[in-house]
Amino acid sequence: MARKAAIIGGGVIGGGWAARFLLNGWDVAVFDPDPEAPRKVGEVLANARAALPALSDGPMPPEGMLTFADSITEAVQGASYVQESVGERLDLKHRVLAQVLQSSGAGVPIGSSTSGFKPSELQQGAADPSAIFVAHPFNPVYLLPLAEVVPSPANDAALIERAKDILREIGMFPLHIRKEIDAHIADRLLEAVWREALWLVKDGIATTQEIDEAIRMGFGLRWGQMGLFETYRVAGGEAGMKHFMAQFGPCLQWPWTKLTDVPEFTDDLVDLIAGQSDAQSGHHSIRELERIRDRNLIGFLRVLKERNWGAGKVLLDHDARRRSAVQDRAVQTPAPLEMVRLQVLPGWIDYNGHMTESRYLFACSETTDAFLRHIGPDMDYVATGFSYYTAETHILHKGEAKLGDALVGQLQVLKADEKRLHVHVSIEREGVVVASVEQMLLHVDMKAGRACPASQTVLDRLLPIAAAHADLPHAAGIGRFVGQRTEKV
Amino acid sequence: MARKAAIIGGGVIGGGWAARFLLNGWDVAVFDPDPEAPRKVGEVLANARAALPALSDGPMPPEGMLTFADSITEAVQGASYVQESVGERLDLKHRVLAQVLQSSGAGVPIGSSTSGFKPSELQQGAADPSAIFVAHPFNPVYLLPLAEVVPSPANDAALIERAKDILREIGMFPLHIRKEIDAHIADRLLEAVWREALWLVKDGIATTQEIDEAIRMGFGLRWGQMGLFETYRVAGGEAGMKHFMAQFGPCLQWPWTKLTDVPEFTDDLVDLIAGQSDAQSGHHSIRELERIRDRNLIGFLRVLKERNWGAGKVLLDHDARRRSAVQDRAVQTPAPLEMVRLQVLPGWIDYNGHMTESRYLFACSETTDAFLRHIGPDMDYVATGFSYYTAETHILHKGEAKLGDALVGQLQVLKADEKRLHVHVSIEREGVVVASVEQMLLHVDMKAGRACPASQTVLDRLLPIAAAHADLPHAAGIGRFVGQRTEKV
Repeated sequence: MARKAAIIGGGVIGGGWAARFLLNGWDVAVFDPDPEAPRKVGEVLANARAALPALSDGPMPPEGMLTFADSITEAVQGASYVQESVGERLDLKHRVLAQVLQSSGAGVPIGSSTSGFKPSELQQGAADPSAIFVAHPFNPVYLLPLAEVVPSPANDAALIERAKDILREIGMFPLHIRKEIDAHIADRLLEAVWREALWLVKDGIATTQEIDEAIRMGFGLRWGQMGLFETYRVAGGEAGMKHFMAQFGPCLQWPWTKLTDVPEFTDDLVDLIAGQSDAQSGHHSIRELERIRDRNLIGFLRVLKERNWGAGKVLLDHDARRRSAVQDRAVQTPAPLEMVRLQVLPGWIDYNGHMTESRYLFACSETTDAFLRHIGPDMDYVATGFSYYTAETHILHKGEAKLGDALVGQLQVLKADEKRLHVHVSIEREGVVVASVEQMLLHVDMKAGRACPASQTVLDRLLPIAAAHADLPHAAGIGRFVGQRTEKV
Repeated sequence: MARKAAIIGGGVIGGGWAARFLLNGWDVAVFDPDPEAPRKVGEVLANARAALPALSDGPMPPEGMLTFADSITEAVQGASYVQESVGERLDLKHRVLAQVLQSSGAGVPIGSSTSGFKPSELQQGAADPSAIFVAHPFNPVYLLPLAEVVPSPANDAALIERAKDILREIGMFPLHIRKEIDAHIADRLLEAVWREALWLVKDGIATTQEIDEAIRMGFGLRWGQMGLFETYRVAGGEAGMKHFMAQFGPCLQWPWTKLTDVPEFTDDLVDLIAGQSDAQSGHHSIRELERIRDRNLIGFLRVLKERNWGAGKVLLDHDARRRSAVQDRAVQTPAPLEMVRLQVLPGWIDYNGHMTESRYLFACSETTDAFLRHIGPDMDYVATGFSYYTAETHILHKGEAKLGDALVGQLQVLKADEKRLHVHVSIEREGVVVASVEQMLLHVDMKAGRACPASQTVLDRLLPIAAAHADLPHAAGIGRFVGQRTEKV
C-alpha cells in the first residue's frame, strides 16, 4: 500500500514537494487554507508530470493519490512524513508545527522548507523537538535534487537518517549539514550574490539582463556540474589547489565587492529591478519561462546522467533503487511494462517536421535497453563477455510523432527461455500507438560467438515476468511477415 | 589569407585564447618567456581540439598556424588583434602593454584578460590609451562564450565595436560593460561567494565538497541557463518580480552572510581547504577533471543550442555567421565538405559496446542536414511549404565506431539540378571510413506532394558547389546495388 506524505502549505514549494511524492508513488494530503491552493498545486503538478518522468530510464511507479485536507490534523493523520512549507515567519511556523505534533505519529519526520531559520529556532517550545528538522529544497522542487537536511542537537539521529532515506526514495540528494547556521549553506551563497547584484543594479553598473548574461554565459555553466572549489581546483592546474589559493587569496583584500554595505530596499530600487526584469523577460509569460526552464534543466540533468556525474549520479542511483519495486509490480500486476518516456527533441525532427524514421527504432531500442537493464544485463554484465543480441526486428509504422511529443515505450514479453527473449514493444503518443516493434533477442557468449543460457540472476528476474505476461493478449501484427494483411482481432 | 592574433602570456588563459583563435581559422603568435609555455599551450589546444568542434553543426574552418615568438614585438607584428594574459600585477601589465603599443598597428584592439583591474588603470601612462580595454574571459576559454568587454571613456568607440565583432567571430559573447568597476561584474559575484564559502570552511560549517554539492545539486543548474534575476522572476510566479522582491527583500537585513568580515588568509586556512579539496577530487587527475568538465560543458551547451536559449543562441549565431566563409571555401577549393563532427555518446552504444546501426544513418542525416542548412532549406524554409525529401539511401557499412570516438561527416555533391540532389556522405573515424552513404534527395512542394524546382537562393548556393565537385573522383561503391561486388578503383 502507498505510504502517505502530509504537505502543509500549498504554494510553489509545497506544490513541488507534493508533486515529487505523488510521482514517486506516495499518497499526498495537502493542507492550505488558501482557496487557491488546489489550483496552484495543480499547476505545479502539471509541470512536474511533463518533466520528472523524462529523467527516468525505468518505468515510473503508479502515481499516488492527491487529496486536500480541511485541517492540519486531517492531513497529518496516518502520514509517514510531514513537510511544512508555510510563509517565512517564525511565529506562524511555531503554530503550525505545534498542531502537526499533536496529530503526527511517534517518530514521524517533520521537515521544514525554511530558507533561513535554524532547526533549534523551529524547535523552540515544541512538545517533541526531536522530530522537527530543516529539509530545505530548491525550486523547481520536482527537478532539482538538492535538499539541505539540517538537524539540531535536539534531534533523534535515527529519525534524521530515516528522513534522508525517504528523500532519496523520492529522488532527492539530502545534503546533511552538520552545524546549524542561519540560511544553511546554499542560501548564504545566494544571498551574497543577491546583495552584490542589487548594488550593481542600484549603482547603474549593470542591468538585470547584463548580470544574468554574466552568470549564464560563464560561471553558471561551470557550477551546474562542478561547483566552486572543484572548478577552481581545475583552474589551478597541475600545481593544485594551493597554487590557486596563493594566486587568488590576496584578492580578498581588494575592493572587489561592496559587501560591507546592505543596499536600502526602497520602492525606487524595487521599481528599477522590476522594470529591468520586464524589459529582459517580459516577452515570455511565467508559464513559458517555467517550461523553458524545465526543458533546459531536463537537458542538463540528462547530460549529467549520461556521464554518471554530479546530479546525474543521483538520477542513476534513483533508477537502481526503484528496480526492485518495478519487479514486484511486474509480477504481481501483469500488464505491458512502461519502460521509458521520451520527449521528441528538435534534433529528432526531419525537414518535414516529423520524427525521423530511425528514431522510432531508437525509441524501441531505448525501451528494450531499459528492460534489459531491469532484468540485469547492464554495462557491467556485458563487460563479463555476455549479452543479448537482437536477431530480428519487425517494425509496424502506425502514426507519426512531432516535435515536443511525449512518447511512452511499453514492453510485453511474448516468450522467454534460457536463451531466447521474444518481445513486443509499442511506442505510444497520448495512448495511441505510433509504432509497434516485434523483436527476437538471443543471449550470447560474445567470445565464443554463439547463443548460451543467461545467468541465473537474469533468469530470476526475466522468467517470472514472462510467466506473468504469458496470458496477456497479443497486439495485432505479431508473428506476421512484411506486407501480410493484419486481420482484425 | 588568415588574419593574425597576438597572444601575450601563454598560461591556461592565454592558451585558451590561442585555441579559440586557431580553431576559428586565425593564425596565432604567442609570446611567453616561460620555456614551458609551448607545452602548456599545446595541452590547452589538445583539449580545445577535442571539445570545441563538438559544438559546431557546420564545418570548422581550416585551423590557423601557431607560432611562438621570441619577443612581444615579433608576436604583435602584423596582428589584427592583441590579447594580454600575463600575471595579475599592474606594473607588469603596464610594461607589457607599453611594448605592445610600440609595435602594434594603429587601430588594432588590445584586450586584457585582467580579472580585477579597470581599463583606466591599464591605460595609465600608455602612449595610446584608446586601444587598450578589458576583454575578460572565463576558463575554459575555448568553451565558455562570455567575454566581459570593459572600455573606459578614453577608448575609441569604433575600435571597441570592432573588437566585439572579432570576439563574436571566434564564437564568444562580448558583454559590453558600460561603467568600469573593480573586477567587472562576474568576478564581483564570484568573489562574494568565494568569501562566504571560505568562512563556511574556516568555521567548520561545511567542507569544500559539501559546498560544491550545495551548488551543483541546486542553484548551479538554474544559473547555467537563466542566471539570477530571471530565475527569481519565475520563482515569483504570476505575481511577478515585485512580489518576489517584497517577499525576499527583508532578508537582506538578516544575518544570512558573514560578508562584513574578510577571513584572514592564513597557512592553516590554505591547508584546510587544500586538504578537503584533495579528499573531494584527489582521485581524479587534473587532466581527467578537465576532460569531465569539458564533456559536461559540451553537453550543457548542446542542450541549450537544441533549445535556442542563452549560450546556445550564441552557438547558433556563430554557425550562421560562418556560413558565407564555408561557401567561399567550398567553391574555391573543391573537396568533399566536412559538415559535422560528432562524438559517440554513451546513449548511442548498444549492449555490445558498438555504435548502434541506426546511429550510422543518424550521422549521415546530420551531415546531409548540415549541408541543407548550409544551402538554405532550414526550418524557416520548410515552414513556407518546400523541402528536400530523401528518395533513396544506400548504406555501406565498412567499420565500427565505439564509445567516445570522434566521427567526421563529409559530403560530396555527385550531381545536382533544379529538383534533384545526389550526394555521397562518408562517416570517418581518424581518417578511416566507417560508413558510406549514397543518397538521392528531391526538392518537393509539400502541399502539392510533388517535386518542384528549389528557390533561386538555394540554387545559387547549391549549383556552384555542384560545379566545383563535378570533377572530384567518386568513392568506390557509388551507383551499385546491394550485394554487387565493388571492383577496385
